[in-house]
Amino acid sequence: MNALHSYVRGDWIAGSGDPVQLHDPSTEEVLATTRPSGVDFAAVLQHARKVGGPALRALSWKERGAILNGLAKKLHEHRDELIEISARNGGNTRGDAKFDLDGASGTLAYYGKLAAELPDTPWLIDGAGVQLGRTARFWAEHVLMPRPGVGVHINAFNFPAWGMAEKMACALLAGTPVVSKAGTCSAMLAERVAKIVVDSGLVPEGGFQFLCGAVSGLLDHLDAMDLVAFTGSAKTGSRIRGNPNLIARSVRVNIEADSINSAVLGPDAELDGDTFTQFVTNVAIDMTQKAGQKCTAVRRILVPLEHLDAVKEALVERLEATRIGNVMDEQVRMGPVASKAQLDDVRAGIKRLQDHCATVLGGAEPMDGPGYFVKPTLLQAKDAGTDLLHELEVFGPCATILPYDGKAATATELVNRGGGCLVASVYSDDKTWLGDVVPGIAPWHGRVWIGSEKTMGQALGPGAVLPGAIHGGPGRAGGGEELGGLRGLQPYLMRTAVQGDRAVLGKTFGIEG
Amino acid sequence: MNALHSYVRGDWIAGSGDPVQLHDPSTEEVLATTRPSGVDFAAVLQHARKVGGPALRALSWKERGAILNGLAKKLHEHRDELIEISARNGGNTRGDAKFDLDGASGTLAYYGKLAAELPDTPWLIDGAGVQLGRTARFWAEHVLMPRPGVGVHINAFNFPAWGMAEKMACALLAGTPVVSKAGTCSAMLAERVAKIVVDSGLVPEGGFQFLCGAVSGLLDHLDAMDLVAFTGSAKTGSRIRGNPNLIARSVRVNIEADSINSAVLGPDAELDGDTFTQFVTNVAIDMTQKAGQKCTAVRRILVPLEHLDAVKEALVERLEATRIGNVMDEQVRMGPVASKAQLDDVRAGIKRLQDHCATVLGGAEPMDGPGYFVKPTLLQAKDAGTDLLHELEVFGPCATILPYDGKAATATELVNRGGGCLVASVYSDDKTWLGDVVPGIAPWHGRVWIGSEKTMGQALGPGAVLPGAIHGGPGRAGGGEELGGLRGLQPYLMRTAVQGDRAVLGKTFGIEG
Repeated sequence: MNALHSYVRGDWIAGSGDPVQLHDPSTEEVLATTRPSGVDFAAVLQHARKVGGPALRALSWKERGAILNGLAKKLHEHRDELIEISARNGGNTRGDAKFDLDGASGTLAYYGKLAAELPDTPWLIDGAGVQLGRTARFWAEHVLMPRPGVGVHINAFNFPAWGMAEKMACALLAGTPVVSKAGTCSAMLAERVAKIVVDSGLVPEGGFQFLCGAVSGLLDHLDAMDLVAFTGSAKTGSRIRGNPNLIARSVRVNIEADSINSAVLGPDAELDGDTFTQFVTNVAIDMTQKAGQKCTAVRRILVPLEHLDAVKEALVERLEATRIGNVMDEQVRMGPVASKAQLDDVRAGIKRLQDHCATVLGGAEPMDGPGYFVKPTLLQAKDAGTDLLHELEVFGPCATILPYDGKAATATELVNRGGGCLVASVYSDDKTWLGDVVPGIAPWHGRVWIGSEKTMGQALGPGAVLPGAIHGGPGRAGGGEELGGLRGLQPYLMRTAVQGDRAVLGKTFGIEG
Repeated sequence: MNALHSYVRGDWIAGSGDPVQLHDPSTEEVLATTRPSGVDFAAVLQHARKVGGPALRALSWKERGAILNGLAKKLHEHRDELIEISARNGGNTRGDAKFDLDGASGTLAYYGKLAAELPDTPWLIDGAGVQLGRTARFWAEHVLMPRPGVGVHINAFNFPAWGMAEKMACALLAGTPVVSKAGTCSAMLAERVAKIVVDSGLVPEGGFQFLCGAVSGLLDHLDAMDLVAFTGSAKTGSRIRGNPNLIARSVRVNIEADSINSAVLGPDAELDGDTFTQFVTNVAIDMTQKAGQKCTAVRRILVPLEHLDAVKEALVERLEATRIGNVMDEQVRMGPVASKAQLDDVRAGIKRLQDHCATVLGGAEPMDGPGYFVKPTLLQAKDAGTDLLHELEVFGPCATILPYDGKAATATELVNRGGGCLVASVYSDDKTWLGDVVPGIAPWHGRVWIGSEKTMGQALGPGAVLPGAIHGGPGRAGGGEELGGLRGLQPYLMRTAVQGDRAVLGKTFGIEG
């Protein structure tokens, strides 16, 4: 039995409390255990603040970027080993595992490369200077200062490598020490990644600590310069945001939560044309990749009435061709969901949706044999306006077709009923229709992905989060913002207006006048 | 008796509930009453969302900028009348009243002017486009979209005109309808300003509503696209941020709260030199302007031991020369605090500080005659490290000298004990010392103001908030950010990454490639 450890204050510790079991979701075999408690959070944070933070901030942006590049390489060196752990611990196909792992190393490398363009000063300058006085002598500059705090990262179970790495990349580059908490059911992969990070010796001591137990009580020790970045359910997100200590000290909270993402087919899309094909392909990928357990996966599929039959036929064909089973079989294209708890949640969610939907394919019934398997489930709304369809996230291989009249106004209204989402994708080559829908839904989304004839074969689908564009969404998606190039560093930086004699500011902050 | 009214859904209404009295703080005469309840908040918000928002967003940036310019002119036309109301309702000297009123019209005009440079598209583009795919065909742009929500502005009592205008300027320019709530004790001036805004006919109906009663219950009706901007006490700020509805819907909250701001004299400052003189002048202004009731006013005065006697002598001389009394007397340079409640708070606060301080000048004793007057009170800490001195904001004409050893590290540590402030000012011409102190304190402050020889006569002091630089602060200052040119619009905009064929994005968003 593999007893997982946390890395705190320079040591790997087993923790205390009753062990929690981690299973292979393909076989239900017990793989590892983790203990929930026994970590002195105040000491962990103090170690980060007193040891890790100063060591990181003593380095230049470029030196911190070199750490990220080094970590990306280390992860890549261990890729095959990590793919195997990902398969066993997460029920991930080889493709799913690579999506997580290459996403992790790719994001680290992206920020490593970005650092090469940053200045030699310990801060960044935000925008142009501003004349404040009667003459140009009295001046203001907005300076982005690394904050002397800790980044507490509470990761979701579905992307143990990518989730940890994308948060860590931005924090470490900004000079912020990290306390990274793994989602429990996939903590075995997260722990292996953490070991690679620690063993690399690249991150200064105290710059990276890793928790694989619970974190209740941790937030009560945070202070004004700290930040909590959370990915997970809206419910837990609300509990974090409502923590009295975080509220009292204005601790920054960046939340990326549930999202009832939509894909919209435009009425102009020709059947089996490139735009239509991308729509069907991307929806099918989102439903089956990682067994639908992506926060960006499509849950609502808006289809013009006249295309309804064609879309259903095309999707059913693709979903039926998706081989499901134990991911150690290389022919398998969709694995189980991550845990028994997820299985129960997904089945219950499908049943709730079925009260308002016809079942086109799949359903909530159990599959034969061991493992936490769910059939790819395609539903069709009886009434596209039903509240539940816009509110319930079933975090598995399930999505619902909402037939609509093809009008831009209808599509916009239905999509925005999600109450704030990470991403919406729209598929059309009608510039008038796009010109209505895209700006209409944009304020309710962190990303809008437009599929059109010319994007065929050019791009990863809307479910992929790329470090150059922001990731997050308003409202029920949590209101957070991550990545997006330098924008991803902002949560760890303080924007301060420094005002004074222009020459004095220039000298103090190394600004060339 | 002047019964104040709220402007909601196109009507001026008196509200209901027991009337609350507003007094002339110089004479204690009752000037007006306001009723706390009787407003249908859900309907107010609906009116803003359905009527005001669409009307505002149908205008271009430039057209909305023209509204702000028009409002600035209207306020200026009514300047003399408003100065008189400000004197009676707020106990403001002519100088104090102008600081508030000219700040209001100046900020509106600043954003009006800024709008002239904005594009003709209904959105702004944030930064450079990003290549996402293997070729430059698949592309991302970050678009700043006006959000279809409401800006609920909960203003402080101390700047009824400026506070309303600076929040309104950013919201209206961003296309967000405003519900502006006045601080109660100064609501007579706020109501007059609101009448000028409404009577101008410049803001489309529903774009501006005004409340002079209580707002309990209002926040429970807000949704994902809305924003609450609050200026006031840390305690009320925490209550707002902890509102379960705001948490559940990730409603944006921008808070500007208490702040134990500091002014630091560098050890190099020559007695009666320009740097020293600016230090003494600005501290004395902050202590007496608006009777110390500025959220940016200095509360902690860090003085090197060797300059202690000189600083005390210079400050006492200035403070003693400050004529205090009924502000209708044009010789008067400092008026009363705004209300009986403030008077009681300030006196109690001075007494608490006196437990740890020697009293250099003034004190908590009542002054002769009617009115809510407090003596300018200069204290000297017995021990600069005492917690209370870094935690208690006495919102009146009171500040505490903290003697220190002149070292940069000591100054940095003491200043940062404030736990996050709106502004710190430092006075020195020693570039090495500034190079240590300024970056050391910057992460804990929204602004750092540097006084040096060459700034003499060039600039307003650190207490003045100018629209070109950000205003806000981390930690106990609330963690918010306002103004700062275009940065001030960001809370009302959604940053969305739009991804797709570069040519399609260009057409959809009017981006020239």
